[in-house]
Amino acid sequence: MITSMSNKNLKMITGLLAKAKERKSRQLFVTEGIKMFLEAPQDRIRQVYISEELERELASANFGDAQDKEHALSSLDMHKTKEKLSELRAEGVTVETVVSEVFKKVCDTVTPQGILCVVTFADHKEEDLRAAGEKGLYLVLEDVQDPGNLGTIIRAGEGAGLSGVILSKGCVDIYNPKVVRATMGSIYRVPFLYKEDIGLAVDELKKAGVSVFAAELQAKDSYDRADYLGPVAFLLGNEGKGLSKGMIERADHKIIIPMLGQVESLNVAVAANLLLYEVARQRRGNKNL
Amino acid sequence: MITSMSNKNLKMITGLLAKAKERKSRQLFVTEGIKMFLEAPQDRIRQVYISEELERELASANFGDAQDKEHALSSLDMHKTKEKLSELRAEGVTVETVVSEVFKKVCDTVTPQGILCVVTFADHKEEDLRAAGEKGLYLVLEDVQDPGNLGTIIRAGEGAGLSGVILSKGCVDIYNPKVVRATMGSIYRVPFLYKEDIGLAVDELKKAGVSVFAAELQAKDSYDRADYLGPVAFLLGNEGKGLSKGMIERADHKIIIPMLGQVESLNVAVAANLLLYEVARQRRGNKNL
Repeated sequence: MITSMSNKNLKMITGLLAKAKERKSRQLFVTEGIKMFLEAPQDRIRQVYISEELERELASANFGDAQDKEHALSSLDMHKTKEKLSELRAEGVTVETVVSEVFKKVCDTVTPQGILCVVTFADHKEEDLRAAGEKGLYLVLEDVQDPGNLGTIIRAGEGAGLSGVILSKGCVDIYNPKVVRATMGSIYRVPFLYKEDIGLAVDELKKAGVSVFAAELQAKDSYDRADYLGPVAFLLGNEGKGLSKGMIERADHKIIIPMLGQVESLNVAVAANLLLYEVARQRRGNKNL
Repeated sequence: MITSMSNKNLKMITGLLAKAKERKSRQLFVTEGIKMFLEAPQDRIRQVYISEELERELASANFGDAQDKEHALSSLDMHKTKEKLSELRAEGVTVETVVSEVFKKVCDTVTPQGILCVVTFADHKEEDLRAAGEKGLYLVLEDVQDPGNLGTIIRAGEGAGLSGVILSKGCVDIYNPKVVRATMGSIYRVPFLYKEDIGLAVDELKKAGVSVFAAELQAKDSYDRADYLGPVAFLLGNEGKGLSKGMIERADHKIIIPMLGQVESLNVAVAANLLLYEVARQRRGNKNL
């Protein structure tokens, strides 16, 4: 039982939650909560920390008598959590209990669910992104800074069939706890790559036969008039500045999401998902209504 | 010049920023930043507070020699701010300067831009929502709780032609500073109504000839197969629980946004905007590709 913040493992966790540099040097990040624990691939989990409170709940949980759907679901999650924990213990993974007050201090969330999980970085290769072939659907993000935006893009993007994300060095760290939480687990399933030079990455996509579309406010062509049946990539820019000139010029096509009223621009996560779900719509065979 | 937090007007502002109850009893809310000041309808502004720093910048701003686009824009905003402030002063509206350190303490944002603005509540009527007639496009939100979600829905919604939003009492307060900021000014242009009984509100929409669609995960019909050329309303539920059974049953049609991968649900702001922009797409005459 860990009873103090001065415990060396907890210190490491605090560092991993707070600092991208710390995460990078250790190639580890931290997830919080039951859903993120259940979604984490078992072979990437290195350590698990449970609050005393959750441990008690897990011990006393009765999985038979859930009265309504909501409780039944959380009861099922509890059951899965118990199972996964005992499998991890059997594999020799550290599973430690932490005094509840100490646990709360470590967490990044306001109402922690009592489980922290240390996970290894993904090791995506170019081939993972290319595996989608003719069904390729990519995003190239230039300096997207808001953690909630990046997380939402990845979460909803998975639902549209996103095959991979290429991020500029200026984007927020994908392992930032706020991004991780907002992905709701999609971070484990959508491949991504940080690139020193995303311009070069765009050139490579084009060479591989991917049609590249830049979403920008000066474009004339509406996004829903283009054909997305072949492999496509969308370039999207920073929340404040949009795409750089160099990136816009690299694209095969410039498109815009037409806006009514006095709206000057769309939130980048909304824009990304409007584009991705238009692709999904066309690929479901619904080119006509 | 206000030099202390104990100033009675600043105390009122702190209350308005922190508490929905305080806002409601005074029928006032507070906006932060230059953009929100410029977007605020002049006749609804009651008081303005400027940091000493911004006042100095406004006094010394030279509007002629902006070198690049970014600076030119902010220089234009500075110019507009100066003009609007002198018009407000001429109308007898309180415009006060606050010592910069005190100003920062009052603000809700991490990097305040130096301008706070006290604005009266909107007074929308049923007729404001109905004004769109055959082009009516409504959202009925049940217990949407996240300020960023509500703000994003209103901001992007305006761009899709949203004619009005009906909110349940359980929704977050639309005048919460985080919602206001996320709307980027759309809060002044999209009419909204809080309703004691949103079920009744749905019945009234139906009586007025509006087709009502419930977005829910158990539905079989894809959202992009429906016809949205006439007046339509979408019902959307709470972030965790979705729509209540009563609301789903009230809808004329149940629709789903098809999802690939292992995504269980979409963020409510993403879902709302996918639906709204599908309507906009169809209404631009793009029923066929």
